[in-house]
Amino acid sequence: MKKFVNDPKQFVPEMLEGIALANPRTLKYVPEYNLIMRADAPNENKVSIIQGSGSGHEPAHVMIVGKGMLDAACPGDVFSAPPMDYVLETTKLLASPKGVLHIINNYTGDRMSFDMGRELAEAEGIRVETVLVNDDVSVKDSTYTIGRRGVAGNFFVIKAVGAAAEQGADLDYLVNLSNRVNAATRSMGMALTSCTPPAKGSPLFALGDDEMEMGVGIHGEPGRRREKLANANVIVDELLEAVVSDLPYKQGDDVALMINGLGGTPISELYLLYGRAHKQLEAHGIRVQRNYVGNYCTSLDMAGCSLTLVKLDDELVKWFDAPAEAAVRIF
Amino acid sequence: MKKFVNDPKQFVPEMLEGIALANPRTLKYVPEYNLIMRADAPNENKVSIIQGSGSGHEPAHVMIVGKGMLDAACPGDVFSAPPMDYVLETTKLLASPKGVLHIINNYTGDRMSFDMGRELAEAEGIRVETVLVNDDVSVKDSTYTIGRRGVAGNFFVIKAVGAAAEQGADLDYLVNLSNRVNAATRSMGMALTSCTPPAKGSPLFALGDDEMEMGVGIHGEPGRRREKLANANVIVDELLEAVVSDLPYKQGDDVALMINGLGGTPISELYLLYGRAHKQLEAHGIRVQRNYVGNYCTSLDMAGCSLTLVKLDDELVKWFDAPAEAAVRIF
Repeated sequence: MKKFVNDPKQFVPEMLEGIALANPRTLKYVPEYNLIMRADAPNENKVSIIQGSGSGHEPAHVMIVGKGMLDAACPGDVFSAPPMDYVLETTKLLASPKGVLHIINNYTGDRMSFDMGRELAEAEGIRVETVLVNDDVSVKDSTYTIGRRGVAGNFFVIKAVGAAAEQGADLDYLVNLSNRVNAATRSMGMALTSCTPPAKGSPLFALGDDEMEMGVGIHGEPGRRREKLANANVIVDELLEAVVSDLPYKQGDDVALMINGLGGTPISELYLLYGRAHKQLEAHGIRVQRNYVGNYCTSLDMAGCSLTLVKLDDELVKWFDAPAEAAVRIF
Repeated sequence: MKKFVNDPKQFVPEMLEGIALANPRTLKYVPEYNLIMRADAPNENKVSIIQGSGSGHEPAHVMIVGKGMLDAACPGDVFSAPPMDYVLETTKLLASPKGVLHIINNYTGDRMSFDMGRELAEAEGIRVETVLVNDDVSVKDSTYTIGRRGVAGNFFVIKAVGAAAEQGADLDYLVNLSNRVNAATRSMGMALTSCTPPAKGSPLFALGDDEMEMGVGIHGEPGRRREKLANANVIVDELLEAVVSDLPYKQGDDVALMINGLGGTPISELYLLYGRAHKQLEAHGIRVQRNYVGNYCTSLDMAGCSLTLVKLDDELVKWFDAPAEAAVRIF
C-alpha cells in the first residue's frame, strides 16, 4: 500500500493528533470521540455549528474548525459515519443557550447517527436543529444514500452559516440560511482513479487505464456512467452541462465556481480545469463572481475533481466574503 | 495518462490562464513570458522579488505571487528552466529604483538562465542581486545540480524576504536575510510513487510496489537510496535524522517544521506525518514554534513528502508571521 500509515486502525486518531499538535492554542482534541473543537467553544453568545461524517474527506471537516467556520467536527473512521455517542457527546460539549446546528451531508449512515444523537441530546434539554446538504446532481439515489448525496457544496453551507453564527444570528435564521445555500448549490464529480482506504490497502474499485467515472461519489460510489478517458476540456464541459442544467443556472446569474480536487490531483491541473469552466460560463452569460480552487472535500487519494456552482445574491456574498479561520494552515 | 490535460504543450499556459482568470484584480498574466505578476507591481518604494523555475511544483511559484510574497514568477515548461529572455523581460517589467532580487533554487539550468538574464538586465541599467536556495540535504550533487538542490525551503526564503521588502527593506538587507534563512533551513524528501509529466504521459521513473525512494528530488532525481517501503513513523524518523543531524539542530533550538506534500498525497496523511515529527522533535528538546503542513513545493502528482526545519530567531519569526497574500486561494 503506497500511503503514509502505521496501523490502519490508528490512521484517524494519528491524523487528529497531528492536527491538535499543530494548533495548540486554537483547538482542543478529545480522543474518546474523535472530536476536534475550537478551544474557545462553546460560546454562549453564538449557535454552535457541528459537522460530522466519515473521515477521508479532509480538509472536510476536521480541518475547517475555526472562527467563522465549524465549532466542532466529530468524524467517524474512514468512510464510516461517526457513532451516535460521538454525536451526542460532541453536542453536549458544544451546548449553547442559543442552540446547536447539526450540518449533515446526505448519507444514510450519517443521518442515522445524527438523528439518534440529536434525540438523546434533546432529551438532556439541548436545542438542536439539523440541516442536510445534498448538492450532488449526478445520481438520484446511490449506494449509501436515499436522495442526492452531499459533496463539496457543504463548504458553502458551512462558510455562510459559520459567518452568520459568528455575528450572533439565531438558530432559525441559520436553518433558513443553510437551506437557502443548499438550494442554490449544485455539484458533480468525476474520478480518474480509485482511492485506497488505509484499512483495505488496495483500490476501492477498479477503473481501467483508459476509463473514467463520471458522477463518482466521494466514497467511490458509482456515478452516472463509466466513459472512455477524455481530455480536460471535454470533462469540464460534461460536468458543467450536468450542473448548469440542473438548477438551472441562467444567463445573467452571478455564481461562485468551485473546482475541488479529490485528494490526488495536483493544483496545477485544478487551475487548468478552472480556466475552462470560467470561460465556458462567461460565454453563456453566467458571471463568475467568486472562485474557489483547491482541495475542499476529498476522497482520500483519489485523482479526480468536482465542480460546484452556487447562485449568488448579496446576502450570500456577504457571508462568503466574511473573515474565516480554518483550524489548519492549508497554505 | 490519468491527468487533466488537453494538449500537453499547452499545459502550462492553460494553467496560468486559469490562475489569471481566478484573480483578475490582483494579478497580471503576460503569456509571451509565462509571466504571472502582481497587478500593482512594480512599486518604486520596494525591491521587486522574482522567482522562476520549471513548472510542475505548484503552488511554487506562480501561485505565491502576492502582497508580502513574490512580485512575479516566470516559470518555464514542466521541469524546464525559464528561458533567459523570460528572465530578462520579467526583470525589465518589474524594474524598481530599489532594485530587483532574483531567488533561484539551485539547479544548473535555472542558474544559467538567471545568470544570463541578470547580465542583460544589468546592461540596461537595472540593479539585480541573486540569491540561491539549496536546502536539500539528501545528496551533495545531483542529476541536474552541482551542490545541493533547492526544494521546499524556498518558501521560507520567499516569505521572509517578501515581508521585509513590503516594509521597504533595501536590496542589501534582503540579500543578507535570504542567505540567513537559507543557512538556517534544511530539507529532505521521499517518494512513494513517481510523477507523470504531461508531455511524457507515463511515470518518470520506475518504483516497485514495495519500494520507496529516500531523498528523491522534486524532478524525480534519485535520492540517497531506494528502500523497502516502511510505515509512516519509520519514514518520518529517517527524514528527521538526516535533516536534524545536518545543520545540526540542537536541544533548546526553536524551529519551524514544515511537512510538505509532493502533489499526490492527501492532507490527512500529511497531518499524520506531522504528529510524529512534532513529537520526536519535542522529545529531543527541539521546540516546534511554527508549523506548515500542506502542498508548498510539489512534483506534479508524485505521492510523497518532504520535511523542512528552520532554526528560528526573533527576526525570522517576525517575517514569517507578517501578513501575506497568496495569489490564489489555496483554501
